[in-house]
Amino acid sequence: MAGNTFGRVLRLTTFGESHGAGIGGVLDGCPAGLPLDASVLQTELDRRKPGADGAGPAGTARKESDTARLLSGVFEGRTTGTPIAFFIANEDQRSRDYGELARVYRPGHADVVYDAKYGVRDYRGGGRASGRETAARVAGGAIAQALLAREGIRVQAATVELGGIAVEQIDMDGARTCRYFSADSETVPRWDALIKDVRAAGDTLGGIVQVVASGVPAGLGEPVFDKLDAVLAAALMSVGAVKGVEIGAGFAAARMRGSEHNDPLTPEGFASNNAGGILGGIASGQEIVLRAAIKPIPSIAVEQKTVDCEGRPVRLRVGGRHDICAIPRVVPVLAAMTALALADALLLQRRMGAGA
Amino acid sequence: MAGNTFGRVLRLTTFGESHGAGIGGVLDGCPAGLPLDASVLQTELDRRKPGADGAGPAGTARKESDTARLLSGVFEGRTTGTPIAFFIANEDQRSRDYGELARVYRPGHADVVYDAKYGVRDYRGGGRASGRETAARVAGGAIAQALLAREGIRVQAATVELGGIAVEQIDMDGARTCRYFSADSETVPRWDALIKDVRAAGDTLGGIVQVVASGVPAGLGEPVFDKLDAVLAAALMSVGAVKGVEIGAGFAAARMRGSEHNDPLTPEGFASNNAGGILGGIASGQEIVLRAAIKPIPSIAVEQKTVDCEGRPVRLRVGGRHDICAIPRVVPVLAAMTALALADALLLQRRMGAGA
Amino acid sequence: MAGNTFGRVLRLTTFGESHGAGIGGVLDGCPAGLPLDASVLQTELDRRKPGADGAGPAGTARKESDTARLLSGVFEGRTTGTPIAFFIANEDQRSRDYGELARVYRPGHADVVYDAKYGVRDYRGGGRASGRETAARVAGGAIAQALLAREGIRVQAATVELGGIAVEQIDMDGARTCRYFSADSETVPRWDALIKDVRAAGDTLGGIVQVVASGVPAGLGEPVFDKLDAVLAAALMSVGAVKGVEIGAGFAAARMRGSEHNDPLTPEGFASNNAGGILGGIASGQEIVLRAAIKPIPSIAVEQKTVDCEGRPVRLRVGGRHDICAIPRVVPVLAAMTALALADALLLQRRMGAGA
Amino acid sequence: MAGNTFGRVLRLTTFGESHGAGIGGVLDGCPAGLPLDASVLQTELDRRKPGADGAGPAGTARKESDTARLLSGVFEGRTTGTPIAFFIANEDQRSRDYGELARVYRPGHADVVYDAKYGVRDYRGGGRASGRETAARVAGGAIAQALLAREGIRVQAATVELGGIAVEQIDMDGARTCRYFSADSETVPRWDALIKDVRAAGDTLGGIVQVVASGVPAGLGEPVFDKLDAVLAAALMSVGAVKGVEIGAGFAAARMRGSEHNDPLTPEGFASNNAGGILGGIASGQEIVLRAAIKPIPSIAVEQKTVDCEGRPVRLRVGGRHDICAIPRVVPVLAAMTALALADALLLQRRMGAGA
Repeated sequence: MAGNTFGRVLRLTTFGESHGAGIGGVLDGCPAGLPLDASVLQTELDRRKPGADGAGPAGTARKESDTARLLSGVFEGRTTGTPIAFFIANEDQRSRDYGELARVYRPGHADVVYDAKYGVRDYRGGGRASGRETAARVAGGAIAQALLAREGIRVQAATVELGGIAVEQIDMDGARTCRYFSADSETVPRWDALIKDVRAAGDTLGGIVQVVASGVPAGLGEPVFDKLDAVLAAALMSVGAVKGVEIGAGFAAARMRGSEHNDPLTPEGFASNNAGGILGGIASGQEIVLRAAIKPIPSIAVEQKTVDCEGRPVRLRVGGRHDICAIPRVVPVLAAMTALALADALLLQRRMGAGA
Repeated sequence: MAGNTFGRVLRLTTFGESHGAGIGGVLDGCPAGLPLDASVLQTELDRRKPGADGAGPAGTARKESDTARLLSGVFEGRTTGTPIAFFIANEDQRSRDYGELARVYRPGHADVVYDAKYGVRDYRGGGRASGRETAARVAGGAIAQALLAREGIRVQAATVELGGIAVEQIDMDGARTCRYFSADSETVPRWDALIKDVRAAGDTLGGIVQVVASGVPAGLGEPVFDKLDAVLAAALMSVGAVKGVEIGAGFAAARMRGSEHNDPLTPEGFASNNAGGILGGIASGQEIVLRAAIKPIPSIAVEQKTVDCEGRPVRLRVGGRHDICAIPRVVPVLAAMTALALADALLLQRRMGAGA
Repeated sequence: MAGNTFGRVLRLTTFGESHGAGIGGVLDGCPAGLPLDASVLQTELDRRKPGADGAGPAGTARKESDTARLLSGVFEGRTTGTPIAFFIANEDQRSRDYGELARVYRPGHADVVYDAKYGVRDYRGGGRASGRETAARVAGGAIAQALLAREGIRVQAATVELGGIAVEQIDMDGARTCRYFSADSETVPRWDALIKDVRAAGDTLGGIVQVVASGVPAGLGEPVFDKLDAVLAAALMSVGAVKGVEIGAGFAAARMRGSEHNDPLTPEGFASNNAGGILGGIASGQEIVLRAAIKPIPSIAVEQKTVDCEGRPVRLRVGGRHDICAIPRVVPVLAAMTALALADALLLQRRMGAGA
Repeated sequence: MAGNTFGRVLRLTTFGESHGAGIGGVLDGCPAGLPLDASVLQTELDRRKPGADGAGPAGTARKESDTARLLSGVFEGRTTGTPIAFFIANEDQRSRDYGELARVYRPGHADVVYDAKYGVRDYRGGGRASGRETAARVAGGAIAQALLAREGIRVQAATVELGGIAVEQIDMDGARTCRYFSADSETVPRWDALIKDVRAAGDTLGGIVQVVASGVPAGLGEPVFDKLDAVLAAALMSVGAVKGVEIGAGFAAARMRGSEHNDPLTPEGFASNNAGGILGGIASGQEIVLRAAIKPIPSIAVEQKTVDCEGRPVRLRVGGRHDICAIPRVVPVLAAMTALALADALLLQRRMGAGA
């Protein structure tokens, strides 16, 4: 209820701050018998890691090994059905002076609202509101992806637009190894050039990420308030950088006619996928296709107007080692959230249906 | 867990099918002492009602008085803190032959996935998956709006685009009494003309609805997974017709630079509202601004390809008394969902903060 | 969260007050395909009904037909997987003057604490705190029992002590048709005589009820905080009249040695059942055996000292049509709560285990 | 949902196994601004610690320093409103051969049901089902007690019966420093003698623990299913050793008349406390008085009949370093669970009432 738990039957509770002891989580509800060791988490964490190769010139200079340690729930290489706890120690908390940031509200950050809500605030690097919190999502999501893989479900995420430059084709398979996790390797050089310019200007960029889940069985999801698309929208929107979520035709659907938007059914299956794989909140068996709008990173080197915690005007230039764009690091985070939501729906589903 | 309850401490559980005894709900967690009678629910229900004046030429021909009866939780004109149950009897369930629809999957509808999920299906008019289910949301939302009004919070919703024709200005106050609940009365004649044409062609339309909440106190909402924008995105996406949700600059943020998107803080408050009133998942005290993409109504008179429940190809022309567009009837539904989410967040908030 | 919902995946939400429009509930999460009509609810409601034959001379004079109407979730005689709503209209709300009870706190009743909690109170016959609220539990529990029956699980409840007079043998099967739902028909005449005396004295009695669930599969339940015995203890203790709950040897276990209390395992199964069918919170496959202590009815004709809502001393003699003992009417209520808890655990279980 | 989280708005999620890396927990929902450091947890952990002075001759020989480390949620000596994670590393996991216990089901333990439920089992020292799990409850409960102390609420627990020998008077204040946390220091020598005898016989003992909460404000708690006594009963029954729970007069109430059991109200307050401080599920402002029946420790040195995991008969004598009685170590665990339940109810309450 205080916001740090995700899921209904497969529940991930996370903890930790940017510059505290570390980031961690507890995944409860994972079935027994799943092969698991720390390397499963590490593979996904490495994709999100600061300074990872995939990050390209958009990456931060902060160095963290992001090494996950399993604390419970695994015995002789398999899950036991008990909670799986993991912990990622913070290593590179530079002993810098936070004096200024302790009192100044950075525009576009949660500083001002955390003070409004809690009265106190861990101002070191954003505290709990830091993007570093997403490491725990990726670790938990890695376990969810292992669960889904057993059921033949795969979640992929790829960048389809960056700084206003969209890809020209979509290759979800190729994105995993492509720079920026781009859905189109042809577009990468243009993004490289743009990022170089924007970095020089001390500014930052946003973009659009597409997530596709394949192998999701027809009938998955709940009706009415917990529609599968509602759950997925919340999952993605819960990532700090996301400002919009759409499914299937999404906002374009608002400009289509019914005769154009409806996906015809044929004996061979659906003839199109404007619905994005979900009808009435329940999976249709087609690919689930989501897109998330990523806002530009708020930490910019350009001078900004802001106030301090007593409301006095301040001119701020955010230095430090910041990303130019949340892409590509947010890409595995969005895949992790989608995997957690789908694995939760799948375990919840087990109890329903005619034969239950 | 089966999808029919919304909220954490203010919880609305709904029930009922399109052609069963009726539609109803139980709102649990409403504080004691709130003045309430059935007229509070009725005022909002009348705005959503089939054939309401506001509906204009987009409306259905089904006639329902949609009269809500309060069954519990109110004593001497005030809430008592116990569950508030209400019931809206179905009146106009025409005794038609559903024989065909019992076996044919209507494209764009949930028929096929309900069969996949449940094995059985109440095929009369869509059963639980009918838009008629939203009447209970509107009734519950009316109580939430009364709660919010006591705290100086107001939720307004307006149509900002219909069939691809966008409004040219936004007047949220005027929308309440404007045809289509339009944010711009000037645009209405163009929508009228478009709807006339589309109806003649047996087709349907979508659009975009904007929801604005004002008076929301800074600090409202939870961090991480239950960010206020994540909760609101789920609330809106849980309405069947919605295919996308964005907040503040939304998808446009993906194309902005950080220096452009960040809202500067000044001693007088924020200088812009690209964030849409939420930072790090927590209300900033600005207006909360959301937009939802509404897909075209799937019931079209144009002939469509589909299959029956044994997978055999069928040609289907959906007759009956259907809306051309979910707008304007979906407008009070989106306001209701936003009000339910905000009232829930407000009651949850009461327990937090430095002095708790 | 406001207390009116029971269960995790099979969720019963109830509403209604003693002298309002009626009592009702919504059961969400019931699997599709279960044969169901109102008679399933009615059979159990008739066992709890005021003035039922089983009630014997302990019963109230209030006459209610307690007729349940199904409002949703059933189509062509089977559940559809959507919420099952039911309503029991109040019929015999005598138009008496509640003027005194509106201001006086009845000892042993919730009057004083409802005022402390809510500030307002529906004083007509106890409002929501009335035992009449349990009708909705019995109706919901009847559906749970139908679900359990499909899995070969049976819940039985019987009176094993009344007014300090214990039964001498336990026949759970015979109790269903025995006066007071007694586990021993031989004891009934002694209870008859005692009740006659106590009624003449204007006083009331308590007792002990035993609940036995057979056919519960080994492995059912969750560990740690949600142990099956913890869930069952809460289920029974949530009934107003219950002041204590024990499982298996219960309080007697506190006086046993380990060598005496441990149930030996043999190739043919357990050699005894001091555990009461649950080990470490998880069902062992033996019978689950619970006992609940029932306090005497607080509404007595004997004059009592109390205060009014301004704290002034008052002498009160509660007239009206009250039971002498919550037994036998509480017996089907305790069976219903046990059935709801077990059916919920069973549906939750579906998602776990090595092969999930 | 998988059993490892306790609470509604103040939520403790625990993890860890007896012989894994350690035991830990995450407490989410704690208000910001509470002074906290590891010593707050340590003080309570030391009371539960194996080999603590309080344990007397009933204690185990396992040596654990049970040192809690805070991992998050605290900044500059105060809570920040974010999740508080803590970890207690296991130190004394002797590298013994578990070969036999891996295949044999110990009577009175959860071995057999964990295999039935999960298919796999961490057999080292009971794994997750070990009493060692309760260390995390005590650590979380220490924070809850700090929260309650700010509101003037105090939770005390004391032993009132051991091995069938009851105390003759009850001094809750004195119990904190008394051997066995006894409510009556006079009884201690008799318990000493009994334990000496029972240990010599290779057997074990049970007892009864009383928990008293004072300062609980009238009006706390929820009605119907989440009655405060129901929540507390579940909290206590969730501790492995507990086989029964009663409140106020408890099982004795079943033998009282209404005129005897009802607590009269006077202008000075209640004249007695048979209700145990809760009416209709809601706190009356009196002391809340609970008692829990503790079963004898199942690990006995006496030879027992059991089976192995293939159902073959085995003769078992459990060696090792085991307690003779769960008392006194279970005493701070029961206090911790009561504190967690009350702090949760208190934070939940904040949102209710006439002025909410």
